[in-house]
Amino acid sequence: MNIAIILAGGVGSRMKTIDRPKQYIEVKGRPIINYCLRTFQRHKEVDEIYIVADVSWQDYITDWIKKDKITKFCGFAPAGKSRQHSIYNGLIACEQSAGEEAVVIIHDAARPFVTEEIIDECIAGAKEMDGAMPVITVKDTVYCSKDGKSIASLLERSQLFAGQAPESFRYGKYRRIHDAATDEELANTRGSSEIAYKNGMEIRLFPGAEKNFKITTMEDLTNFEAELNKEGV
Amino acid sequence: MNIAIILAGGVGSRMKTIDRPKQYIEVKGRPIINYCLRTFQRHKEVDEIYIVADVSWQDYITDWIKKDKITKFCGFAPAGKSRQHSIYNGLIACEQSAGEEAVVIIHDAARPFVTEEIIDECIAGAKEMDGAMPVITVKDTVYCSKDGKSIASLLERSQLFAGQAPESFRYGKYRRIHDAATDEELANTRGSSEIAYKNGMEIRLFPGAEKNFKITTMEDLTNFEAELNKEGV
Repeated sequence: MNIAIILAGGVGSRMKTIDRPKQYIEVKGRPIINYCLRTFQRHKEVDEIYIVADVSWQDYITDWIKKDKITKFCGFAPAGKSRQHSIYNGLIACEQSAGEEAVVIIHDAARPFVTEEIIDECIAGAKEMDGAMPVITVKDTVYCSKDGKSIASLLERSQLFAGQAPESFRYGKYRRIHDAATDEELANTRGSSEIAYKNGMEIRLFPGAEKNFKITTMEDLTNFEAELNKEGV
Repeated sequence: MNIAIILAGGVGSRMKTIDRPKQYIEVKGRPIINYCLRTFQRHKEVDEIYIVADVSWQDYITDWIKKDKITKFCGFAPAGKSRQHSIYNGLIACEQSAGEEAVVIIHDAARPFVTEEIIDECIAGAKEMDGAMPVITVKDTVYCSKDGKSIASLLERSQLFAGQAPESFRYGKYRRIHDAATDEELANTRGSSEIAYKNGMEIRLFPGAEKNFKITTMEDLTNFEAELNKEGV
């Protein structure tokens, strides 16, 4: 059983000129969230899809799910007060289907260019180990500083990786970590794999793709439209 | 004595649709390199400006320096085979003016939005310590991995900083590090402050600005033009 959980709870506060969260902006005939939904729908090994979204947007999403025939959609979970709280809500929403060994694949609605190959790697990695995550190399020269004023140490750039989504996990282990975590721990978690790693889960890293970026700014949106034009969508 | 060294040796290979290195693309009536040149020209504490550039572009730059009245310009240095080699060439080019305690401020031609305040901090930091560098926080969740396949450790994001330019250094100490460095050491250096820090110079970090980005991709260029439009340039 492989279950996709799509995180669409964000409010998109970085794009103030837009009247709605970024994942609901309609580009080339469909909202951004539907691009990744179609990929998960098409993937042969994905069995069910859950969406974490604010209640006020659920009717809108439901309309679009019907229009795009996302037949694997099984239900909503309410948005949480942090990304990790939203993930927890998604884990609870799918608990009827997800057994101990099920794989959950957690994705951002605002990453439209996830590929079937990335989803393949997520599923395979979570089956071999406890989870998997696409990563890209860090382009900046990164310095470590305890006070932001003087350099404490240099970091070897070839050993630094930035996490993308989707991240996959074995349901049972990952769920129990969330059940045991304090509210504060969830609120302070920055990456879904971070909390897994800290609690002893083994996470396989694999190469992601620059194109699998998250739409955050107006420039990202322009970039996304340009890519679609290039592909003749 | 405060000397600006502007690095314009890059060939802009990431933007293949453009017929020239990015720093020479003309936007709103002047090449990108001239935006930072005008800021260094205007800054009251900057005495001289040197430019590291491929010989084939030096006539072009000379024309634009005249048009924009960059009267502090004192000479060219040839582009090196790596960024750090270019810096070394710049350090050699200004050796007649630069005494032991002079401050060199090393900037990228493709960062048009450097501000006078950032230059202030560079000069003050190099006078108090051995050098200074603007940094911004790292937005990604960064994982450390030795093999790119499994997580070796997590990094505390609040302690991670990405270096920007300009970086400033006391001339004497910084020059001697380059005189002593092997060709390979220069070629493998990723940040101008990295080689300084590794050789015992104390570098002051201070907050840079998102807007002080480096134009690398077509999207960065679009972004730059949008910013100029916003400012009514």
